[in-house]
Amino acid sequence: MKIEGVSYRSLWLAEDGWSVHVFDQTRLPWKQETLRLANATQVAHAIRSAQVRGAALVGVLGAYGMAMALRVDATDAALDAAAAQLTEARADLITLGDTTRRMAAALRPLPFTDRLRAAYAQAAAIAEADIATNTAIGRHGLALLAPIARQRGRVNVLTHGHAGWLGTMDWGTALAPIYMAHDAGMNVHVWVAESRPGFQGATLTAWELGRHGVPHTVIADGATGHMLQRGAVDIVLTGAEYVTLQGDVINTVGTYPVALAAQDNGVPFWVAVASSGIARSADTKVQGDDARAATELTIVTGRALDGSIATIRVVASGSAAANPGTDLTPARLISGLITEHGPCNATEAAIAALPAGGLRPLPQA
Amino acid sequence: MKIEGVSYRSLWLAEDGWSVHVFDQTRLPWKQETLRLANATQVAHAIRSAQVRGAALVGVLGAYGMAMALRVDATDAALDAAAAQLTEARADLITLGDTTRRMAAALRPLPFTDRLRAAYAQAAAIAEADIATNTAIGRHGLALLAPIARQRGRVNVLTHGHAGWLGTMDWGTALAPIYMAHDAGMNVHVWVAESRPGFQGATLTAWELGRHGVPHTVIADGATGHMLQRGAVDIVLTGAEYVTLQGDVINTVGTYPVALAAQDNGVPFWVAVASSGIARSADTKVQGDDARAATELTIVTGRALDGSIATIRVVASGSAAANPGTDLTPARLISGLITEHGPCNATEAAIAALPAGGLRPLPQA
Repeated sequence: MKIEGVSYRSLWLAEDGWSVHVFDQTRLPWKQETLRLANATQVAHAIRSAQVRGAALVGVLGAYGMAMALRVDATDAALDAAAAQLTEARADLITLGDTTRRMAAALRPLPFTDRLRAAYAQAAAIAEADIATNTAIGRHGLALLAPIARQRGRVNVLTHGHAGWLGTMDWGTALAPIYMAHDAGMNVHVWVAESRPGFQGATLTAWELGRHGVPHTVIADGATGHMLQRGAVDIVLTGAEYVTLQGDVINTVGTYPVALAAQDNGVPFWVAVASSGIARSADTKVQGDDARAATELTIVTGRALDGSIATIRVVASGSAAANPGTDLTPARLISGLITEHGPCNATEAAIAALPAGGLRPLPQA
Repeated sequence: MKIEGVSYRSLWLAEDGWSVHVFDQTRLPWKQETLRLANATQVAHAIRSAQVRGAALVGVLGAYGMAMALRVDATDAALDAAAAQLTEARADLITLGDTTRRMAAALRPLPFTDRLRAAYAQAAAIAEADIATNTAIGRHGLALLAPIARQRGRVNVLTHGHAGWLGTMDWGTALAPIYMAHDAGMNVHVWVAESRPGFQGATLTAWELGRHGVPHTVIADGATGHMLQRGAVDIVLTGAEYVTLQGDVINTVGTYPVALAAQDNGVPFWVAVASSGIARSADTKVQGDDARAATELTIVTGRALDGSIATIRVVASGSAAANPGTDLTPARLISGLITEHGPCNATEAAIAALPAGGLRPLPQA
C-alpha cells in the first residue's frame, strides 16, 4: 500500500540479496523507521519484541529467518534449531510454527549445498502467496462493500484491532477490501476502535489508513456500541488471530463486545482471515486468554508535545491490572468469514469444506 | 469514605462557614489536592472544568453556589442570574438544573434578609439528603451482594465508569454496596473497566477503591466481555448519568456493550441511581450522544516516570476522532435499578410507581 503516495510492502530484501528490511512497528505511528534483520537471532528478537507483528507477516519473516540460519550452517541440526528458535519467539502464532515446520520438512530432503537457495526461493514464494491471498480476500470483501456503496452512496465500516497491510506482506486482511473500495473511488469511511490496551487501532490502523488517504475516525472501544446503535455503521470487518474448527474467532481483545453490539443492531459482522489462519485440528489453544503484561494497560506510550516519545502511567498507583490479549467471538455472532477462497459461513461444516490452505509446494531448485 | 484510614466527604464547609472545599478531580489520582470555592463564578468554573463531577455532587455544589451568590446580592434578579450561571455550567446534568431551579423557587418567597441563612440551610439539607440517599442505595445493593458472597464465598463485581463517593457527598451509588460489603468483612473484588476515553475507571474508581482498601483489578473496556464470558464476574453494578421514563440508562460511554455481554453470559446487570436521577418527563435529552472534545480521546494525561504529570498523544497524527460521552443501555438489558427506595424494575410502570424524589422541603428559617 502507499505511504504519502509511495508504494511499499511490509518486508523487502535488502540490496545484499539475503537480509531483509521491515518497519519497526513499535515506533509507529510516531516514527517511520525500518530495521535490517540479518540473522535468525535478530529475526526472533524482532518477532518477540513485537517490532514485527501480524500473523501473516511473522510467518513470512520466519521463513526468511530460516533461510538466514542456513547461511551460517545448513545441517539438519541447525535447521531444527532455527525452526525451534523462531517458533518460540511467538509460540501463540500458528502461522509461525506452521511455516518453520514446513520449511524444515521441505528442506531436509535436499543436499546441504542446495538448501540455501531453496530456502530463499521458498521464503519468496510464501511472501508472494501471502500477497495473492490478501488480494483475493480484498476482492471478496469488496464484493460485500460494493452493493452497500451503490445503495447508500457511501459505506461506513467499523474495525477493531489491526488487520492492515503492516501485518501482512501487503493489503492486509480486514483492511484489504477497504483499500480496494477507496482505490476504486467508492465513498468509504472507517470507524477505527482504538483497541486498548495495545492501541493497535489508534496507532497502526489509523496510521495506515491516514497514510493511504482513506477517511477514518478513531473512537474509544466503548463507543463502538453507540455508533452501531445510532446507525452510523453499515458493516463491521475485523481480522482474526485465528479461527477455530467451529468458526469461533480469536482476535484482539474487545472484538467480542463489538460483535454483540453488531448483532443487537442488525449490522453484519464479517471476519477476514486467510484459510491458513483457520485451525484444522481441535488441539490448538482456543480459550482466548493469553494474559499479557499488565503494564501494557497501565503504562501508555505516545508522543509528547515536544515531539519526543514518552511513557506515562494512566492507572491509579497501587491498583492491580489484568490484560487478556485476545477474546473469543462465538461463531453465532459472525455473519461469515472472508477467506481467499471467498465468503464462508462460520460453521464447522463450511470450514471443513474449504480447500486445504497453507504453503505452496516447494519450487523446484 | 476513607483515604488511607482517614474519613472524608467529597465537599465540606471551610472554617469561614460559607466557602466550601472539594477535591480537584482533574488532579486525581496523581495529586490529592483540595480547592476552596468562594463564589458562584468559581463554583461554575469548577463544574465546567470537571474539577467537580458526578451528578449528585454537582447538584450539592450548585446549591452552595446559589448560597454564595446571595452573600453578594440577595435580590430576585441576582437569584435568577446565579441559577442561570450555575445551570449553564453543565446543561446536560438534570440534577444541577433541578437543584438551582428549586433553590430559587424556595428562596424567592422569603424576605431578602432571610434568604442567605435559608440558602445555606437548604444546601446543607441537600447534602445530608444525598448522604441518606446513597446510604440507602448501598444497603439495598448490599442485599444483592450478600447472598452471592454467602453462596460462593466471594463476590466479583464488575463496574464501568465512576459511580463512587467522589461523585456524591459520600458512599457513591454503584460503589456504595461494595464499600458496605467490604466494611462488613465480605470477600469482595471489583473488576474496574478503565472507561476510555475519560479513564474514570482507571483513575477515580481505582483510586477510591485502592485508598479505601477494596481489592480490585483494572481491565481494558474491551476485556469486560472476556471476563464475563469466562465466568469471572458475579454481578455488574454501574451508576447512571440519568435514567429515562422507560428505564433506559444513559451512562458513561461503554456501558451498553458491557450490558450486552452481561446478558449474553447470564450475569445480572444492575444500575444504582438516586430517584432524582430518573427523568419524570419525556422531554429530557435521551439520545446519549453528548459529543465531547475529541482531544479527550487523542490526548492522554498521566504520571511520567519522574513523577510529573504529563500529556501525550496516543492517536496517529492527522487522524480524526469522535468522542460521544455517554451511551444508552436499553431497559431490556437491565436486571433492575437500585434506588434509595429499594430495587426497582427498569420499566415505565415500576418507575412511575416510585415515590416522588428530589429535594427535601426547605427547612423553616
